[in-house]
Amino acid sequence: MKKYRLLSPGPTPVPEKVLLKMSEVMIHHRTNEFQKVLREVHSKLKKVFCTENPVVIMASSGTGAMEASIVNFLSKADKALIIRGGKFGERFGEICEKYGVATVNYDVVSGECADPLAVADYLKRDPSIKAVFSTLCETSTGVVNDIKAIGKAVRDTKAILVVDAISGLAADELLQDEWGVDLVVAGSQKGLMLPPGLSFLSVSKKAESLMKASDLPKYYFDITKALKAHGKDDTPWTPAVSLIKGLDLVLDTILSEGMHALIARHARLANITREAMKSLGLEIFSKRPSNAVTAVKVPQNVDGTKLVNKMQDEQALTIAGGQEELKGKIFRVAHLGYMDDYDIISAVAGLEIVLKELGYNLTLGKGVGRAQELLSK
Amino acid sequence: MKKYRLLSPGPTPVPEKVLLKMSEVMIHHRTNEFQKVLREVHSKLKKVFCTENPVVIMASSGTGAMEASIVNFLSKADKALIIRGGKFGERFGEICEKYGVATVNYDVVSGECADPLAVADYLKRDPSIKAVFSTLCETSTGVVNDIKAIGKAVRDTKAILVVDAISGLAADELLQDEWGVDLVVAGSQKGLMLPPGLSFLSVSKKAESLMKASDLPKYYFDITKALKAHGKDDTPWTPAVSLIKGLDLVLDTILSEGMHALIARHARLANITREAMKSLGLEIFSKRPSNAVTAVKVPQNVDGTKLVNKMQDEQALTIAGGQEELKGKIFRVAHLGYMDDYDIISAVAGLEIVLKELGYNLTLGKGVGRAQELLSK
Repeated sequence: MKKYRLLSPGPTPVPEKVLLKMSEVMIHHRTNEFQKVLREVHSKLKKVFCTENPVVIMASSGTGAMEASIVNFLSKADKALIIRGGKFGERFGEICEKYGVATVNYDVVSGECADPLAVADYLKRDPSIKAVFSTLCETSTGVVNDIKAIGKAVRDTKAILVVDAISGLAADELLQDEWGVDLVVAGSQKGLMLPPGLSFLSVSKKAESLMKASDLPKYYFDITKALKAHGKDDTPWTPAVSLIKGLDLVLDTILSEGMHALIARHARLANITREAMKSLGLEIFSKRPSNAVTAVKVPQNVDGTKLVNKMQDEQALTIAGGQEELKGKIFRVAHLGYMDDYDIISAVAGLEIVLKELGYNLTLGKGVGRAQELLSK
Repeated sequence: MKKYRLLSPGPTPVPEKVLLKMSEVMIHHRTNEFQKVLREVHSKLKKVFCTENPVVIMASSGTGAMEASIVNFLSKADKALIIRGGKFGERFGEICEKYGVATVNYDVVSGECADPLAVADYLKRDPSIKAVFSTLCETSTGVVNDIKAIGKAVRDTKAILVVDAISGLAADELLQDEWGVDLVVAGSQKGLMLPPGLSFLSVSKKAESLMKASDLPKYYFDITKALKAHGKDDTPWTPAVSLIKGLDLVLDTILSEGMHALIARHARLANITREAMKSLGLEIFSKRPSNAVTAVKVPQNVDGTKLVNKMQDEQALTIAGGQEELKGKIFRVAHLGYMDDYDIISAVAGLEIVLKELGYNLTLGKGVGRAQELLSK
């Protein structure tokens, strides 16, 4: 008998009561009962997204909402600035390319965060840039960008700021309205503690004005349609009813903890994870680490792929490896969503065991001890 | 205390064991465990779709798969024949229009089915038509099209045949390979007895050859990517894990009943519903009625909207009204998916009560009696 512990940056564990909520009898989506659920969810989402803007819910993975953030707000002749600090930043550029939107790439060194001054400079040099695309937490490197400062660089220009908060939302602070973020992209299977299958897009008034001019083709991801339906607490297409019922409950959980406490819990668990790793002589890969996921360099002479596989297959602890050029070079431990102190203890304990088995020199319990020290403070 | 009975053409009731399956602990999608689920599901889907072609699973509503069936296989200069017999036939045309694909509309009288000879004629007159779009069951009118005959008209031309089987799959017979259907679009919340959130697209070799030439933009719905991942029992984006685990179980249920018995059960329940309605003096709207849903004309002097609302609010029996120009003129009772004899008895009994309350002259029990007669045969 082994319990399955999900320590990956998505999907994250789903609270038991939410799993059961989603197993309630199926109801029809065009009923007063479901409209009431949507009304609740629409109102609670604004609080979690820290915005007065509407937050549209779609049935898709987060990538669908990324596509929606491009095809609804840009046109063929437009130019976009893409902050590329990893796989997910790059994805914005790939989508632009497919739709014939010109891109200017701001390539950030892997493991580092974007420089807000550089963003301001790009915009100054090329005022034709219509949108700036950034990640909040770049899941592939565990870096959190300084969206507050990037927002300052963008807000007084004509460009909109689009933030992929898929893995960062509800873990790293993101004050959409205060910071001047125009579009926030999110997914269900991260900080929102749900199964994958829902994506979100929060739309500012500034973005809405670009939307009217957009000439890129879209149908399923048509945000004009989605916003119109949103205004009536409805959806343009059949919504993922069971996931949305789960969302209603999960948002209650989040809001009863409170956004401030929620972010603080993630910051604390992230800090403890980093400190425990450092106490084992390991190096943190991310220069500006996110609260959602900790990326750690695989020590020399240890096989990074084996590390992740042994954690999965032998310890039933699911962590993530590096992607693409980081494959085998880093491992990533998430502390995202439905996570508490003893999940971190388990993660560190399991990592110690597996690292030792793979020949890394450490004293079992050292990292755990460091985590305990910080947890008991 | 009232039990909620879902008699709408989607979402349909989800079997209790499937609801519980989807409430299992969340697992990661890039694991051997989940890959095994995908392998199983990919193999079972072929049996349910009656095809040797790959059936791709997407996280979206059925409309997303409809869009995928256009943007991956057509190009801007192409022309499509759209069989429009209702709201869902029309949707194919709307999507084509958004992407700049020229359409030829074959408008079928509402409540009637498409004439396969007319389809052949359209193709003969205009050999530049690249694709023919039809619904299997046109949910808005309860009509099932003769896809076998339409397939004969299309298969020896250069055009591909695209069938929206969203509400018809696993209720009305659809032998994809035998009948020469190239793309089959489906959704989870109909005959597949799951919550909404998954869509499906089954792709023939003939369609794959058009795919290579397609110049329409796509990213999330890129079927080239999806087929490549499918070949490795993977998905290009994070899949809706819990729904797919439910799918695995539901496909077992379907295949253990057997496709022949499954279609026969739907045909039987549909026939009984129609006969019960007729015994009450009501008229069936559909000239070629589907096994999935029965559309019935609202009798004179009865308020069709009130009928649907009273069924919902007072009887907890969810049926559907007419859409758009059929609003108030028809009501639709589904017998789709997880449905048995006593669901039909309940539907007929509830309809009798509400019709009588709305002033329609009938003897309570007459329709139920007719249903019993046929059920006991």
